[in-house]
Amino acid sequence: MPKPAPRRITIIDVARHAQVSTTAVSKVLRNAYGASPAMRAKVQQAIDELGFRPSAAARGLRGQTYTIGVMLPDLRNLFFADILDGITTQLGDTDYQVLLAPGCNGEQAEARVIDAMIDRSMDGLVLIAPVSSKTRLNTVARSVPTVVVGRHGSATTYDSVTDDDVAGAALVVDHLADLGHRRIAHIEHHETDPVRLAEMPNAQRANGYRDAMRARGLADEIDIASTSYTHHGGYAGAKELLSRPHRPTAIFAGADVVALGAMEAIAEAGLTIPDDISVVGYDNSALAAFGPISLTSVDQDGREMGANAARLVIDRIADRTRRTVQVKLTPSLAVRRTTAAPVQGAEVNSASPAPTE
Amino acid sequence: MPKPAPRRITIIDVARHAQVSTTAVSKVLRNAYGASPAMRAKVQQAIDELGFRPSAAARGLRGQTYTIGVMLPDLRNLFFADILDGITTQLGDTDYQVLLAPGCNGEQAEARVIDAMIDRSMDGLVLIAPVSSKTRLNTVARSVPTVVVGRHGSATTYDSVTDDDVAGAALVVDHLADLGHRRIAHIEHHETDPVRLAEMPNAQRANGYRDAMRARGLADEIDIASTSYTHHGGYAGAKELLSRPHRPTAIFAGADVVALGAMEAIAEAGLTIPDDISVVGYDNSALAAFGPISLTSVDQDGREMGANAARLVIDRIADRTRRTVQVKLTPSLAVRRTTAAPVQGAEVNSASPAPTE
Repeated sequence: MPKPAPRRITIIDVARHAQVSTTAVSKVLRNAYGASPAMRAKVQQAIDELGFRPSAAARGLRGQTYTIGVMLPDLRNLFFADILDGITTQLGDTDYQVLLAPGCNGEQAEARVIDAMIDRSMDGLVLIAPVSSKTRLNTVARSVPTVVVGRHGSATTYDSVTDDDVAGAALVVDHLADLGHRRIAHIEHHETDPVRLAEMPNAQRANGYRDAMRARGLADEIDIASTSYTHHGGYAGAKELLSRPHRPTAIFAGADVVALGAMEAIAEAGLTIPDDISVVGYDNSALAAFGPISLTSVDQDGREMGANAARLVIDRIADRTRRTVQVKLTPSLAVRRTTAAPVQGAEVNSASPAPTE
Repeated sequence: MPKPAPRRITIIDVARHAQVSTTAVSKVLRNAYGASPAMRAKVQQAIDELGFRPSAAARGLRGQTYTIGVMLPDLRNLFFADILDGITTQLGDTDYQVLLAPGCNGEQAEARVIDAMIDRSMDGLVLIAPVSSKTRLNTVARSVPTVVVGRHGSATTYDSVTDDDVAGAALVVDHLADLGHRRIAHIEHHETDPVRLAEMPNAQRANGYRDAMRARGLADEIDIASTSYTHHGGYAGAKELLSRPHRPTAIFAGADVVALGAMEAIAEAGLTIPDDISVVGYDNSALAAFGPISLTSVDQDGREMGANAARLVIDRIADRTRRTVQVKLTPSLAVRRTTAAPVQGAEVNSASPAPTE
């Protein structure tokens, strides 16, 4: 038979064991003034011997839960694991515990998850690539110290950490154009909301692609498939691009997961990477570096982004009225085996599986 | 200038707005007897109009936080994302919110994370593949309703959900032996602790491999590299196996991430999969199904495991004294392109990069 749950050790037990007053124990627990080093040592010993764990709920009512809530849009995007590593490493020596809220898909699910974190009195929030409206983000940030990762645009209520996505897209176009490609296509995440078009990294990458194509004199070659930043979005986007009259010789996918989907569609069409077509991703996730994939990809340094986000949220918890900070990091390009010079004549559409023209 | 945080709406505001007593509001919030449907409707309307959010910390002191803590050993193992999907889907319609504690690596980090979840008064815990001692798991489970996923052995304090890992390993050996392989090697996770040797899935898979090899009359061909269930562990394990006098014609890696590392070492050695060597993983994660990888792998149905874990933890929260339940699921094999019949003469060691004999 399972034993019943043992009674929880309380502050009263600790006081009795240490032979001090409960007020003294409380002072030590709150790190308050007036607790002598000797008192601290005595109380700490009693805490250790009894295995006392102060309830975080009780601490929450006193003002702090020592919890940072991190909202992740997608556990399967390994780039987010890099950001999280940066956050946990940065918080490693502090009393803060990171708790992740998973599985946000769209504004409604996101609202529910953010509410749940606020309800649980988290001391600070790190929201990764949120899709919520600006109004909503401002409301959240006014109630809890908040750092937003991966969203551009000005903000007066929260700090933000972004990668320069326009520069990242330019790195890709320049790399491909330097190799001799002209028909460089892009798979973007479909977006219609005007605020998101201005703030989301996906929209910035699409803009950066267009700008860079123009800057290289390739304005007429701009060719975009508008799907989603998912494996399937990449697959569908590449299928669409391959069936167009002038097949691209290179595809710039807006994220590594998108590139993987594109690679699957390219293989299905009987084409070879990079001989028939070059592919570039974005995020330089562990997958991109994985030998058999070896995907050329833009490196955003997720760990650095995460470390910055953690530092900012701790600063903001300490001083909620300070001016907002925006950290913008500069990306680099990791060149691997999915990009090469176009083969002469590859622009001819003969190898395309189902030419529509 | 950022605005100061607005005052939090309290139960008093709700009572005033609804023109009822605070006791009445409290009753409705606690779902207590004695609150009429009319009263409920009135209070609910005031809650909606004011945007009142009852503090989960305050609810925590009343006994429930409606939070399930899930401990994940590794965010980069995509199989865990499947388990999590199962958990969140199962809890979808309930009031429970899932919060993940990430980044456990070893017993000490695990202890810290579990303590943090207990401190935050979580209603129940789902521990995925914990490495803690049995004593420690029992202590945790006596204090919080707990479900352990992916750990064998009997338990009187917590429920468990496992895959039949011995059967899974047998599926792999039988598949490879049916194809004609005899030199089937295994990459295991190095383990010395006697309890873990009996309870951890990795140890069960290694045992299952040995049993199945014996059952197929291949006892003399048993060949194990003992590394770790990581990408690097797979890489190092495969390198070791490939340098042995009698190179295997097939490698059974204990997890998909391990198989990916092995594939990298095999490619580096100038060998082709499956022509020179077959590779099998375990978990059937999204990576295994990904076209260019197309890894034969044992399917544990992580979603089903997660759904069972969520159901059990909710049941246990409702009745902490009920008898423990052990759910054991039966795996299947997803056959893909990394396994084929051995080429005649492939057992001769000529293609090995650095033969030692």
